[in-house]
Amino acid sequence: MAKPKLKIVPLGGLGEIGKNMMSVEYGEDIILIDCGLMFPEEEMLGIDLVIPDISYVLENREKVRGIVITHGHEDHIGALPYILPQINVPIYCTKLTQGLISVKLKEAKLLHQTKINVIPSDGTFKLGKLKVDFYPVCHSLPDSVGLVIQTPIGAVVHSGDFKLDYTPVDGKPTNLSRLAMLGARGVLLLMSDSTHVELPGYTPSETVVGENIDRIIGAATGRVLVTTFASLISRQQQVIDAAAKYGRKLFFAGRSMTEIHKMATDLGYLKVPEGLVCNIEQLQRVPPEKVVLMTTGSQGEPTSALVRIANRDFRHVHIMKGDTVIISASPIPGNESLVSRTIDSLFRQGAKVFYDRIAKVHVHGHASQEELKLVLNLVKPKYFVPVHGEYRHLTMHAELARTMGVAPENAFVMEDGDILELNTKSGRITGKVPSGNVYVDGLSVGDVGGVVLRNRRMLSQDGIVVAIVAINKQTGMLVGRPDIVSRGFVDPDESKAMLDASRDLIIKLLDHDGKDIPEGAMYNDVKETLNKFYYEQTKRRPMVIPVMVKV
Amino acid sequence: MAKPKLKIVPLGGLGEIGKNMMSVEYGEDIILIDCGLMFPEEEMLGIDLVIPDISYVLENREKVRGIVITHGHEDHIGALPYILPQINVPIYCTKLTQGLISVKLKEAKLLHQTKINVIPSDGTFKLGKLKVDFYPVCHSLPDSVGLVIQTPIGAVVHSGDFKLDYTPVDGKPTNLSRLAMLGARGVLLLMSDSTHVELPGYTPSETVVGENIDRIIGAATGRVLVTTFASLISRQQQVIDAAAKYGRKLFFAGRSMTEIHKMATDLGYLKVPEGLVCNIEQLQRVPPEKVVLMTTGSQGEPTSALVRIANRDFRHVHIMKGDTVIISASPIPGNESLVSRTIDSLFRQGAKVFYDRIAKVHVHGHASQEELKLVLNLVKPKYFVPVHGEYRHLTMHAELARTMGVAPENAFVMEDGDILELNTKSGRITGKVPSGNVYVDGLSVGDVGGVVLRNRRMLSQDGIVVAIVAINKQTGMLVGRPDIVSRGFVDPDESKAMLDASRDLIIKLLDHDGKDIPEGAMYNDVKETLNKFYYEQTKRRPMVIPVMVKV
Repeated sequence: MAKPKLKIVPLGGLGEIGKNMMSVEYGEDIILIDCGLMFPEEEMLGIDLVIPDISYVLENREKVRGIVITHGHEDHIGALPYILPQINVPIYCTKLTQGLISVKLKEAKLLHQTKINVIPSDGTFKLGKLKVDFYPVCHSLPDSVGLVIQTPIGAVVHSGDFKLDYTPVDGKPTNLSRLAMLGARGVLLLMSDSTHVELPGYTPSETVVGENIDRIIGAATGRVLVTTFASLISRQQQVIDAAAKYGRKLFFAGRSMTEIHKMATDLGYLKVPEGLVCNIEQLQRVPPEKVVLMTTGSQGEPTSALVRIANRDFRHVHIMKGDTVIISASPIPGNESLVSRTIDSLFRQGAKVFYDRIAKVHVHGHASQEELKLVLNLVKPKYFVPVHGEYRHLTMHAELARTMGVAPENAFVMEDGDILELNTKSGRITGKVPSGNVYVDGLSVGDVGGVVLRNRRMLSQDGIVVAIVAINKQTGMLVGRPDIVSRGFVDPDESKAMLDASRDLIIKLLDHDGKDIPEGAMYNDVKETLNKFYYEQTKRRPMVIPVMVKV
Repeated sequence: MAKPKLKIVPLGGLGEIGKNMMSVEYGEDIILIDCGLMFPEEEMLGIDLVIPDISYVLENREKVRGIVITHGHEDHIGALPYILPQINVPIYCTKLTQGLISVKLKEAKLLHQTKINVIPSDGTFKLGKLKVDFYPVCHSLPDSVGLVIQTPIGAVVHSGDFKLDYTPVDGKPTNLSRLAMLGARGVLLLMSDSTHVELPGYTPSETVVGENIDRIIGAATGRVLVTTFASLISRQQQVIDAAAKYGRKLFFAGRSMTEIHKMATDLGYLKVPEGLVCNIEQLQRVPPEKVVLMTTGSQGEPTSALVRIANRDFRHVHIMKGDTVIISASPIPGNESLVSRTIDSLFRQGAKVFYDRIAKVHVHGHASQEELKLVLNLVKPKYFVPVHGEYRHLTMHAELARTMGVAPENAFVMEDGDILELNTKSGRITGKVPSGNVYVDGLSVGDVGGVVLRNRRMLSQDGIVVAIVAINKQTGMLVGRPDIVSRGFVDPDESKAMLDASRDLIIKLLDHDGKDIPEGAMYNDVKETLNKFYYEQTKRRPMVIPVMVKV
């Protein structure tokens, strides 16, 4: 009997940045890799989070052996609280990743019912009939891994998110020898991170950033505030080292920064000299030149500590002349103007601000072109699937693989929902499973759909007008004067005359024996008349809703 | 009698990018420099445009001698149609700028009543008692100028937007000798463009872009589509040259691109070989390898030609395999995701796309640090005011000026509305005039204020619920069952039960002899009850509006 085919089904992260989730299926076993969220885009009004559509997983639930998590970033773990209640399978991950997942599941009251298996970053475990090996990779978070799935028809390598930093802060570079050995033995399929395939050359080492942070803190004469991603533990270590070196005390502001600092210290991922870290309540008692303060807010989030500090809305800290602020992060696309505003407002209050456009105070965590080529060169896969990227990234990465010797027909540009089936001879995309965005809005998961969002969009542009028309249920005649309630359309005081005129229009329209007019027609007449009138008067198109009250 | 002081009042463009407008006042004369608009930021929901507050100008209207325009970009001319009806003064500008302004004023039916004086790019004219000299500068638009205002207490130099391209496409570099001579004679005040002060080194020449566009068009085997800013006339010239060189025909798609091409050709700013440009109707009849198509859409604008082409929604052109697309522009902050999506969708349909992150197909039009230093070095002003930039840019540019020898107290970081008063001895900021954003929304200028925008913001997040409650005007008792109309809150079908429950809640609340309850209290009770109930049920906060209908 022919061996089953290997089935690869991306459920998130291919054709987009975020909500990474990949299904790898062989015979009776499915392994899910990552379970991430995506932050809503601008036009997803009011949406809190976006998670993958897991219909395919639920249909095949009896095959699912577990969820393997490559590292603890939101776009890899963030959907767990929403998806575990639907399919409770064990999780496999490294120790720090487990720490980050636990914080999240505790909040969602799911921790006790979830089985999390901690695996060393070079460990091995079995899921169904498939053997999985972790190998350590460098990323902007310690304890990140790639994985090798040994299937009966060959090895599948998934890179996770990675770069090839030879001098990382935690001293654990990506295990290239492992990849080379795998390549020598033959790899069936490589799936590799495409996030930064647009960038030529090599991604600079974390060490460069450490040197710059050290230099800036060393030269500062007043307080130093540093903001970065709360999960960027290696950056914390660099700040800890510099603070200690220059005899400063270290303070934390912002819940997530404080919590992750504690968790990473407890688990041994941060080396913190005794007495270095102080409670923020003590900040006032330490002279400015002895202070380093780490805060949340690297993306200009309105409720974060740094933004509240910049807006003079934070109890413990106000900016004073002589303060130095290091923004050790790049704005995530969409956040540029929030970050700019924060920088401007810090400058306005007299701080000196170092940020990515003017100082090398951040490097990102993804491989650039030369690193991606090196991995392709070592792994020498028969098949290649670029993962983690928008469509252009995937296209370029596939092209890169072809120039590195992957047969043109064996590099597959896939998007969420595509099914790729492979055997040792050939592979092809054979169909599509349901996939897409599931919106989390408040308590609900998935009930906000196209209509609700389209309405929010319309409301956001020109507001709403509700026309309340009382109709005598016997005679069908208008009772009294119609009411107009508007929000977000015009200033009701300044435009009182115009709004009044629209009430008169309704009276004129309905001032007759209404008996013969069906209610639906009346509704449409009022709506159309008002739409037309308001557009003529204002060139705006508010949402117009007539409400007929029968009395 | 002491000479009057020179009064500098920025009304737009200082502390922000866009809506540039500066008032320069000496004695009985005010000269306005530029009159630009700003595109709305994300949170200015439904707003079409933003223009400066000109209360100060209107209060001093009898002093205003004219509006001098440095060049024809929207952020320098775009507010004219809104401001000229309020203060009809003559305009002074170069020929191409006049062409661009005329297109705009014609649309607004203001052309016949406006006096536009065309001045050569090295010309001189008088405004009241003040003499104004233009000097040519390089920018991303030909015929751009800086200006020198000769006042009785010294010369004021305003750079306009500029860079120091020594090899510009139109062969007219920034006139550095003129600046050197001015500097030798002594300059009282320099106001200089700060937009790109964050960038070290020199801005590359347009020539670099021309070479790359030539190379890409030369190597293409199918059609080539080029998009750029419609007003980037030098880029058009580069595309024209390459199309002619490789024996291709040139087509235009998109209204503004087509119009500006015609206008610039008529005025002699474009050199177009006979027979090169064809009507888009003929596109189908020309073989792909003979086609270059210039389109609007460099910012991913949803209704632009390129985006419609990418969405298969443009009659004359669909993307086919083998097409090459050059996006010769950078995304303006805020437009990044629109541009990304357009690129992805072009890739998806098989086009090869060159854009700023992967190819040098665009340079911007503003001076980098070394150029700004050179200008400071030549002009040697006593006073310095950085213009055109957000607060951080202005701060850095002032700092740069100090390192170049401007006395620390003579470099002023000003924001819109600040009044700077100078004489030959000293200067200081003496007060503030009204300034800020005036919103244009549909037909109205200025009536959309904080409340309307705040309402749009709320509506955009969680939608609206209108509760219609009929009350007997004699008894104060509830009549019938309250109605609930919601938009953008929940899916009304899926959440029918919840919405019905909220109607019951109102009945329960009002089911009593209502006579003693004032209507306001009833309104508030309904509102609070519903707010609480909906939040408990959904963790969303729709805008709740009770409407009491008395029958």
